[in-house]
Amino acid sequence: MNVLVTLNAAYISPLKVMLRSLFDNCSENVNIYLMHSDIKDTQLNQLSVYIRSFGHTLYPIRINKNTFLEAPVHSYYSKEMYYRLIAHIYLPDHVDKVLYLDPDILVINPVERLYNIELDKYYFAAAAHTKPVIDYINKIRLKIDSNKYYNSGVMLINAALLRKEVDISHILGYIREHANELILPDQDVLNGLFWNKIKPLDEYLYNYDARRYRSYLIASKGRVNMDYVIYNTVILHFCGKQKPWHPNYKYRFGVLYKYYQKMVQMDEAPKKDDSYIGDIDADQYLA
Amino acid sequence: MNVLVTLNAAYISPLKVMLRSLFDNCSENVNIYLMHSDIKDTQLNQLSVYIRSFGHTLYPIRINKNTFLEAPVHSYYSKEMYYRLIAHIYLPDHVDKVLYLDPDILVINPVERLYNIELDKYYFAAAAHTKPVIDYINKIRLKIDSNKYYNSGVMLINAALLRKEVDISHILGYIREHANELILPDQDVLNGLFWNKIKPLDEYLYNYDARRYRSYLIASKGRVNMDYVIYNTVILHFCGKQKPWHPNYKYRFGVLYKYYQKMVQMDEAPKKDDSYIGDIDADQYLA
Repeated sequence: MNVLVTLNAAYISPLKVMLRSLFDNCSENVNIYLMHSDIKDTQLNQLSVYIRSFGHTLYPIRINKNTFLEAPVHSYYSKEMYYRLIAHIYLPDHVDKVLYLDPDILVINPVERLYNIELDKYYFAAAAHTKPVIDYINKIRLKIDSNKYYNSGVMLINAALLRKEVDISHILGYIREHANELILPDQDVLNGLFWNKIKPLDEYLYNYDARRYRSYLIASKGRVNMDYVIYNTVILHFCGKQKPWHPNYKYRFGVLYKYYQKMVQMDEAPKKDDSYIGDIDADQYLA
Repeated sequence: MNVLVTLNAAYISPLKVMLRSLFDNCSENVNIYLMHSDIKDTQLNQLSVYIRSFGHTLYPIRINKNTFLEAPVHSYYSKEMYYRLIAHIYLPDHVDKVLYLDPDILVINPVERLYNIELDKYYFAAAAHTKPVIDYINKIRLKIDSNKYYNSGVMLINAALLRKEVDISHILGYIREHANELILPDQDVLNGLFWNKIKPLDEYLYNYDARRYRSYLIASKGRVNMDYVIYNTVILHFCGKQKPWHPNYKYRFGVLYKYYQKMVQMDEAPKKDDSYIGDIDADQYLA
């Protein structure tokens, strides 16, 4: 299975948590392609060792920072977020299909059922986070003929087809042209350019917004309750500015996140019997 | 490491969840002594296979139901709860020390730090769930000279010393004598008979009542927050009538419980690639 992540050095800690949960929920070998621009070799080596300890493999791909020189970035977005849209150019030719995952994610059920979804003539498969009013605003704003605004945090990417049909200049051109209108930058590009080439995924299963437990429960008339999530949802996505590695994260799935976060720290702690880890700084992650 | 559990057939499912979490948080081999009266051999065999798949060993000990014939039992308590108090009689002679654990527990940090606590001349180590008013009532009620009322759900048992000093008739005599006064039966016996032979444990670490997140947070002036629990607490105890395997369990640690519950079901599911487990009945546990 091919997995793609694109991030800067600040997100390596959450990335490990995401990967740990992925490895727990995947019975195949995983090739992890990491597109980045500023991660040091020592950090890449440490990450690679961690990944190899679970039997999987890291393939770092360094991207020239200037590729997206003119693209707008915001306070908590980075240039790296655009890399998922041009991954097909940089991935090895034999990679026909890749699953892009944000680092602020937990995989909590077998990921194969997402990876094995048939893409046919679609470039991507992704889930829209249904919010009718905002969906309407986005439709007008991006001038698209679709009521869905897809979230770019989880995407199954048809690299083979994109390689055939979509040139990098096409994407960079769109960004340049719309630089002043992009709000959620890479997501706006995904929707603005490719809205009719995206296969819709069920957000309850494949891109569950961890903040929205109650609204999902109501929208689904009680069907998507806690048991449903625990037994069915593949991807829990900790969307928004509040992140589960923050000390005061308030949403209910934070407990599960912190438990995985601790497992990573224990994986990496020097092994000794009966070690008391009370002094580990749980807030070593970005504040 | 020696672990003791005492239960009837209705609690085998929660027991597996507890054990799964224990195995995740224990680097030693575990001998699990199961004292029971009514569990069928086929069920014991299945349980034994499950335990062996993690490299640990089950030792069932069948107790004659008539041993506690006169002991009071209540709607959601069973005779098996008394077995922990007489375990030293039934455990093999080479078992000097054993950790008793209720089945409604998750172990979430290395259990060795609990097991390795020195018992010296104490019969037990246990935590009191501090509730000043109730503690006072129990002190008067049980005629004991202690402000602590110990919870019997997590106990480190000095089997060697008990074997030397405490005869079964002593315990059965107390139960017979106080049959009409016992409210939380085995716990009352533990406190009434042995209050001055119990080494106090920190309840935040070794018997954290999963319902009391907010009151612990306040009582500890913010110290015992979610990070503290995830990084330090060894035993999360799902006390009370509401249990985390019930569909509408409301307390925040329920997410973590359900996740472990699902892992057990996946451990036991017939292995096939990409199996969709959406139809597993999450409420197969006792209602």
